[in-house]
Amino acid sequence: MFEAHFQTFEDAEGGVALTARLAAFREELARRNLTGFVIPRADAHQNEYVPPSEERLAWLTGFTGSAGLAAVLAEQAFLFVDGRYTLQAAQQVDTAAWTVASLTDPPPEATLAQALKAGDRLGFDPWLHTTGAVERLEAACAKAGAELVPVDSNPVDAVWQERPAPPLGQVTVHDLKFAGDAEADKLARIREEIARLRTDALVLSDPHAVAWTFNIRGADVAHTPLPISYAVLPKDGRPTVFIDGRKLSNSVRDHLERNADVAEPKQLVPHLTALAQSGAAIAIDAATGADALSRLIATNGGKPVRGSDPVALLKAVKNATEISGTHTAHARDGVALARFLFWLDREAPGGQLTEIDTVEALETFRRETGALKDVSFPTIAGSGPNGAIVHYRVTRKTNRRIRPGELLLIDSGAQYQDGTTDVTRTIAVGAPSAEMRDRFTRVLRGHLAIARAVFPDGTTGAQIDAFARQFLWQAGLDFEHGTGHGVGSYLSVHEGPARISKLGTTPLKRGMILSNEPGYYKTGEYGIRIENLELVAAKEIPGSEKPVNGFQALTLAPIDRRLINTALMTSDEIAWLDAYHLRVRNTLREALDDATRDWLDAATRPLAG
Amino acid sequence: MFEAHFQTFEDAEGGVALTARLAAFREELARRNLTGFVIPRADAHQNEYVPPSEERLAWLTGFTGSAGLAAVLAEQAFLFVDGRYTLQAAQQVDTAAWTVASLTDPPPEATLAQALKAGDRLGFDPWLHTTGAVERLEAACAKAGAELVPVDSNPVDAVWQERPAPPLGQVTVHDLKFAGDAEADKLARIREEIARLRTDALVLSDPHAVAWTFNIRGADVAHTPLPISYAVLPKDGRPTVFIDGRKLSNSVRDHLERNADVAEPKQLVPHLTALAQSGAAIAIDAATGADALSRLIATNGGKPVRGSDPVALLKAVKNATEISGTHTAHARDGVALARFLFWLDREAPGGQLTEIDTVEALETFRRETGALKDVSFPTIAGSGPNGAIVHYRVTRKTNRRIRPGELLLIDSGAQYQDGTTDVTRTIAVGAPSAEMRDRFTRVLRGHLAIARAVFPDGTTGAQIDAFARQFLWQAGLDFEHGTGHGVGSYLSVHEGPARISKLGTTPLKRGMILSNEPGYYKTGEYGIRIENLELVAAKEIPGSEKPVNGFQALTLAPIDRRLINTALMTSDEIAWLDAYHLRVRNTLREALDDATRDWLDAATRPLAG
Repeated sequence: MFEAHFQTFEDAEGGVALTARLAAFREELARRNLTGFVIPRADAHQNEYVPPSEERLAWLTGFTGSAGLAAVLAEQAFLFVDGRYTLQAAQQVDTAAWTVASLTDPPPEATLAQALKAGDRLGFDPWLHTTGAVERLEAACAKAGAELVPVDSNPVDAVWQERPAPPLGQVTVHDLKFAGDAEADKLARIREEIARLRTDALVLSDPHAVAWTFNIRGADVAHTPLPISYAVLPKDGRPTVFIDGRKLSNSVRDHLERNADVAEPKQLVPHLTALAQSGAAIAIDAATGADALSRLIATNGGKPVRGSDPVALLKAVKNATEISGTHTAHARDGVALARFLFWLDREAPGGQLTEIDTVEALETFRRETGALKDVSFPTIAGSGPNGAIVHYRVTRKTNRRIRPGELLLIDSGAQYQDGTTDVTRTIAVGAPSAEMRDRFTRVLRGHLAIARAVFPDGTTGAQIDAFARQFLWQAGLDFEHGTGHGVGSYLSVHEGPARISKLGTTPLKRGMILSNEPGYYKTGEYGIRIENLELVAAKEIPGSEKPVNGFQALTLAPIDRRLINTALMTSDEIAWLDAYHLRVRNTLREALDDATRDWLDAATRPLAG
Repeated sequence: MFEAHFQTFEDAEGGVALTARLAAFREELARRNLTGFVIPRADAHQNEYVPPSEERLAWLTGFTGSAGLAAVLAEQAFLFVDGRYTLQAAQQVDTAAWTVASLTDPPPEATLAQALKAGDRLGFDPWLHTTGAVERLEAACAKAGAELVPVDSNPVDAVWQERPAPPLGQVTVHDLKFAGDAEADKLARIREEIARLRTDALVLSDPHAVAWTFNIRGADVAHTPLPISYAVLPKDGRPTVFIDGRKLSNSVRDHLERNADVAEPKQLVPHLTALAQSGAAIAIDAATGADALSRLIATNGGKPVRGSDPVALLKAVKNATEISGTHTAHARDGVALARFLFWLDREAPGGQLTEIDTVEALETFRRETGALKDVSFPTIAGSGPNGAIVHYRVTRKTNRRIRPGELLLIDSGAQYQDGTTDVTRTIAVGAPSAEMRDRFTRVLRGHLAIARAVFPDGTTGAQIDAFARQFLWQAGLDFEHGTGHGVGSYLSVHEGPARISKLGTTPLKRGMILSNEPGYYKTGEYGIRIENLELVAAKEIPGSEKPVNGFQALTLAPIDRRLINTALMTSDEIAWLDAYHLRVRNTLREALDDATRDWLDAATRPLAG
């Protein structure tokens, strides 16, 4: 009945092939006079989702997580992963060949500084690391008396016989009715930022930035409509977009050429070389710009200026058209969610549904809106103990039936042309325990403390992050992830630079969209997360002495009343939730069939009174 | 009847003398072939309170604030101060000669980069700046094509004819019954930290660190029992304390010599020079170590390693003896506060009391405990509009009568041998307005949110700072200072490294003492601040999944019930305040006379029920 088009449930390969690959790779290193090599899980743009042709880490090691770094040395091979992937890495890689080690604390550089030997030559591909990362590797090599050696071509590619071709997803124009601001207007604002940076040019190394600036979208990676590309923007004059011409129809090429020259990707290096030879100072994004870019600018007499890509902040602040679009997208998504949650309430208590069933059903309801372009990330559907695995992704092997008395945590999102969504609901299947309700209510109160927060203009996400944690802290509990991340407009569901986290030092500006997703995870038992997307908006407060902001909830889906212990809540909190539920009901009910509408009316009835 | 021994109310000098000084100083610069000079408000230890011999900035400019920087150039002279001192600076200095400019945003370096001319030679005294500050000045000079020139002797001293002699306050031993840990034990712990730093030695440039390590106290500056001194601690072997021998009695010298060699201050330079010549890596405190120290180590072949003085963190975590002492000190201080607040409630409504009267009365009640060594800072007693001046200090000129219908904000503290106190109460004189009560209650709820907070071990002050602001933010209000600072144990009332502020990145550790002092200031009308000192302590919570901490209020003084609007508070907040008031009453009442006891009983009666 239901099926998923945008997500697979297969387990990764493993075994004999991997052993042969590592041996072949070591021979290749020997041919190149290298004693080791580092392989990050990265492409040349530090993209979150990378095309299959860039999955070098997975091909070599078998590890398919979204973050990691391998270091193959003469006698040892390390796979560095963070805490969420320790278990998965040990299952996926041949632990006789690979030592699984920490990606964070200690950092890989500390491990490498000890494992490297004096005289070692550790190779790296400067297109796959930022300059900051290279500097850390250089310091580690220096400590060990080893040498860090940039290579011209990646030795993994030399032994990867069936390496997929780079993607050629067709580029489309992101219509002004979705984008709101014309390319020329955006370029004018970026030029002001380049003037502020006092450089001669800016390299857009982040394809999201290229997509936003030129109002295009692509199809090169899963879940995000990215057109893999670069652009170089001089402080005056015409920019150049570097993109494979096979991805452009005539009309898209015409669209681009109204504001830019279009060139093939291989022209980027000679273009930047010529610019550098003129002595230009060129701004490079420290977060996504490859070390190769800084290197070629510096070696040709230019001045690479590393910093934050100003487009990241411009893009994060949504304009009125994008804000209107996200409201439409969330109303559409809310209809699919209501249909899904109604279906789940009917089917789940029977005890026959599996996690994959729920993923397939949710995607199907979203596809039936007729507007779904993709899911914005692989749905996390964790029942019972799987809910406690923060980055769980169900496979055929881990799939399990959802039993009465369990919680289902389902975190999902959609890509619509008018907006990107991301929502988590935790659903009681059968009767929840008192502890589950206590924990859910603490998470909910944290969620509401963010949703209801009022804060002066200029406040950062770091300043308010603890609002979401306070009620868990009071019980000696916490959650080990940030409270919220930025979200793009028909772009990445994880968008910088603002976030709600103790590391979130970017001020929250009006028009930004952030997730609000506190949780609680009891290992081996259950997981809870409640996530809405929130729009930062001005608050009008009589007598206010300064401009203050707050959030407007964008997501429209009921929060499971069966998990709420209202005795633990204040009347203000209950009133807020009742008003939210009323808005959900009023916004969605006309678009629903009678049965779903009745379900929604019940699911959103007031808690008070 | 009452008098102040530890605080004066005189206005600073000004006028003709200052004009002559600047002219003489410029002639001295010309003699030294300098076109300019920078004069910080600092001594060689970056002390908060400096001896009169180090008040170069005040002598030259007339400005007596606690933070500032002057830059005398050939044609212009700048005085850089922060927002709280803009008005005071304009009143104190000759604005025909001095341009008052910003100390923070833009920083002085930005102003200097524009004001300096190519070829200018800007002098500075490397004993009065940290290396970080010198690097910023160097960058400013480089931008302008000017040169930053270190001098061997300070040109201010050459023209300051009646410069006071350096202080010779007698040093005393800080008895083990107050200090808790013996010097040898502290030195053993510091040696572990030096081993962790992998240096050959550590310079203690902060006299607070010397005082803590060797269990001595001094009398060289006002309000803080500092023995101005240095120490050099080798990773193994005997430390050397550099201190003027005239400050040491035989018994104090014997005390020091049990664990250290004692040398005269002038021996510091040859001592460090010899150490540097041996190639030693020497740790220097980035916050208090003079640039001169790093310079002399580097020029003699040693390696200066700048970082955080590990003693700062050791000192901030109080031991059981110090914690017991601070409880005793706060009970004693609470008796003085109760007597003062009772007196104020009797006398103030008559409308005859002045701000100075209150300062004198409070100090007298504290002196009558028989244990007062000093006030821990000049008392801030701001009535009516003066209360809205955050760093107000009453002088004969600004002194005013407190009128019924006004608020009195009084922020004060004591130095006792067993502990340092710091407390602010805001008192209603006559009937407060509804707005005052609303604002006071918002500040109180913020204070309680900190006092009642529970947070995981490792949480920083930055993470919880907004707890104190949330109720003000909800009304579009805020306060423009941090929520809390660390406090020493019979040492500085402002002690690092932890603080509760958006800049507070040090984890809060059990045993630390911090102030909790949110406020609200309505310019031209009134000021509100509520401050208790708080001890970080473990919280025992059944079912807790991780170690969590909270605060224990150390300060014992009633919070003015007349200013509380309980309708705005939760029942949990009211219960906490009632329990606190009960503890204040039970702890203090036995030590009070009958009339004061009756007053205290009424002032601390429950708000609930």
